Amino acid sequence: MRAEIICIGTELLLGHVVNTNAAFLGRELALLGYDLHHTSVVGDNAGRLAEVLEKALTRSSLIITTGGLGPTLDDLTKKTVADVLGRPMVHDDATTQSLKEYFGSRPGDANQETQAWFPQGATVLANRHGTAPGCALTADNGTMILLFPGPPREMEPMFREMALPLLEKRVGASILSFMVRTFGQGEGNAAMKLGSLCEAANPTAATYLGAHHEVFVRVTAKAATREEARALALPAVEEVRARLGDVVYGVNVDSLEQVVVGLLRERGEEVATAESCTGGMLAMRLTDIPGASAVFRTGLVTYANETKTRLLGVPEDMLAAHGAVSEEVARCMAEGVRASAAATYGIGITGIAGPDGGTAEKPVGLVYLALATPGKTFCCRMAPAGIYRGRTYIRERSVGLALDMLRRYLENKPVPDTFSC
Amino acid sequence: MRAEIICIGTELLLGHVVNTNAAFLGRELALLGYDLHHTSVVGDNAGRLAEVLEKALTRSSLIITTGGLGPTLDDLTKKTVADVLGRPMVHDDATTQSLKEYFGSRPGDANQETQAWFPQGATVLANRHGTAPGCALTADNGTMILLFPGPPREMEPMFREMALPLLEKRVGASILSFMVRTFGQGEGNAAMKLGSLCEAANPTAATYLGAHHEVFVRVTAKAATREEARALALPAVEEVRARLGDVVYGVNVDSLEQVVVGLLRERGEEVATAESCTGGMLAMRLTDIPGASAVFRTGLVTYANETKTRLLGVPEDMLAAHGAVSEEVARCMAEGVRASAAATYGIGITGIAGPDGGTAEKPVGLVYLALATPGKTFCCRMAPAGIYRGRTYIRERSVGLALDMLRRYLENKPVPDTFSC
Repeated sequence: MRAEIICIGTELLLGHVVNTNAAFLGRELALLGYDLHHTSVVGDNAGRLAEVLEKALTRSSLIITTGGLGPTLDDLTKKTVADVLGRPMVHDDATTQSLKEYFGSRPGDANQETQAWFPQGATVLANRHGTAPGCALTADNGTMILLFPGPPREMEPMFREMALPLLEKRVGASILSFMVRTFGQGEGNAAMKLGSLCEAANPTAATYLGAHHEVFVRVTAKAATREEARALALPAVEEVRARLGDVVYGVNVDSLEQVVVGLLRERGEEVATAESCTGGMLAMRLTDIPGASAVFRTGLVTYANETKTRLLGVPEDMLAAHGAVSEEVARCMAEGVRASAAATYGIGITGIAGPDGGTAEKPVGLVYLALATPGKTFCCRMAPAGIYRGRTYIRERSVGLALDMLRRYLENKPVPDTFSC
Repeated sequence: MRAEIICIGTELLLGHVVNTNAAFLGRELALLGYDLHHTSVVGDNAGRLAEVLEKALTRSSLIITTGGLGPTLDDLTKKTVADVLGRPMVHDDATTQSLKEYFGSRPGDANQETQAWFPQGATVLANRHGTAPGCALTADNGTMILLFPGPPREMEPMFREMALPLLEKRVGASILSFMVRTFGQGEGNAAMKLGSLCEAANPTAATYLGAHHEVFVRVTAKAATREEARALALPAVEEVRARLGDVVYGVNVDSLEQVVVGLLRERGEEVATAESCTGGMLAMRLTDIPGASAVFRTGLVTYANETKTRLLGVPEDMLAAHGAVSEEVARCMAEGVRASAAATYGIGITGIAGPDGGTAEKPVGLVYLALATPGKTFCCRMAPAGIYRGRTYIRERSVGLALDMLRRYLENKPVPDTFSC
């Protein structure tokens, strides 16, 4: 089964927009078992689009287009597809009706009406996320053609809601995916531990590099029904969890901070933060979660030594004896903010994000992270391994590690005392 | 002059990597005056790559490929290009030498040696950002072919350093761009003010949506020499500045926070921050700039009312009378943090980032931002215009506005008291 993607839009060629649609569709088609051999980008030009479409019809059993469905003159995908297939355009009354409801009494929308015309034989795919509907049709040679609008926030949900059921029906299977998320382990290491799991045909397991340098494992099963796919996938998900161990922080969750905020909420506990090199990034990630106010009240960015002393009670002679980037100071920061904010937990982070400020003894990338709990204060030394990957990288890894230390503590798992980044 | 881009790599088709190379090259080629009609993505497959290359040779005078230059078996771009052009592969001693220097005594790099072979007639383009060199060659029909490695952090600087001079020579012109950055104005509004400037052929002016929802204007001039291009561009840059006015915060600068930190450093002044709804994002952006410690010592995330009172001295009865999201509280936060940190300036931010917590009187998206200075405290009310674009959007706009208020004050420009987001 060969599939082909054609992305339409001069803005893509000119580089005003990065083509994330191709990547999204590539992932979805691979999961469905399609072989994707070609992705093409063409501008808003009927002749060149027709040429690419004709070529695609000779070699692919599924063609997906994005873009060129809107109401402006350069939106010519539907008409060009109709011409290539030798079909007339026909009017869809239901689309006109829903456009009327969308625009109400707003004037000057005569062009919108072009959105209600489709190639003969097309099934309209309603767009609940914008105005331009898509459509599905089958060419005389049996090739399925799916037309989607260009904006990813319209295309992606439309694909999942409308196209996936059609494609699952076509390939005769339901497909279900689970994303296992991990923190603190490289992709190569994860792949090694997963071993033969990554070679299995159904369910499949594949590693991905996710946001914040985390490694995700996507487990996907294909079966006749959704329930059978679930029954097939779940043991593999458990096997992935078992092989990767404590680095797994969740399955089908949004983020590490979401897990941490959720665990704290369940327990009715609070965390307070004291940050130096991360400069507020930890507080920012915690407060990214709606409802974080139930578990987070106070964050301090103590960027200067004087501020560490004034707000956290770090003794001046400790700073002089050990330096601001030291285990002693990290512990003092965590305990200080825990006490002053009267929180259950306190986190302290101090380090050298670079590019300057490193020494032989304390190199750029060295960060101490402390977690003060009711019983004990943990401290982890994060040290650079290999090349310096930039200030933002060091800061992001530090914040991830701080969140993961707290996650591990809350889940009764060992909190590390060293970490390579 | 027609150009064509061919991106090679199964990881692009499968969507494991988003194709930013195509967008980057699209922008660069447009600036050079090339018409880009086609961009193709093919997997690591010699037959399909050869087919796409043969088609491209019939219609384009410039072909740029990315990917498939590394030392592994599936890196087949150079060999396939050589085959399509009917040329043998020849060895480049200089590349072997630089690979030896790069790898030193590390073992097991036999495959690396494939990187020293090129199609006959190719000019090697050295890679100072990785191991795989690129190359430039001219087909018998006169089409120029440029081969680059796939990783953007290698391809982009290589293109600028090695290919741009070649292409400028080919098109007989030097091309120079200036990026004018603005905060606080929509793209449509900016385009309207620029008017006919955006229609000029040389220099050109075009608007872009940049990071953090900022609008950039790129001014580009083409001339026989770099100096002539500069002489042509600079008056247009000044005209853009004049038409857009105070929203311009810099030309060819990295970010608004870089400008703010630079202005504070020049004056030997400091800023301290007190954040509620932005949760540390303002402190994080300031401390993203290396050397920020000279101008920033203290940031407070006062997410709870109790913390606003304890750390900033916001009176409990003020919170009760006006609510935490109010002009009074924002002013008190800015003045409180300025005083306690003994900084020149204090910034206070309090608002409702949503999705919940809004009321008819204080809707989601309402944010008060205050800037305390030695003489006066400014306050700006940021109110939502149109649909709710999410928690992150509200937070990012608030932080941008706070930075811009300080930038305007430091540049003796009027500080706004209302802002639509």
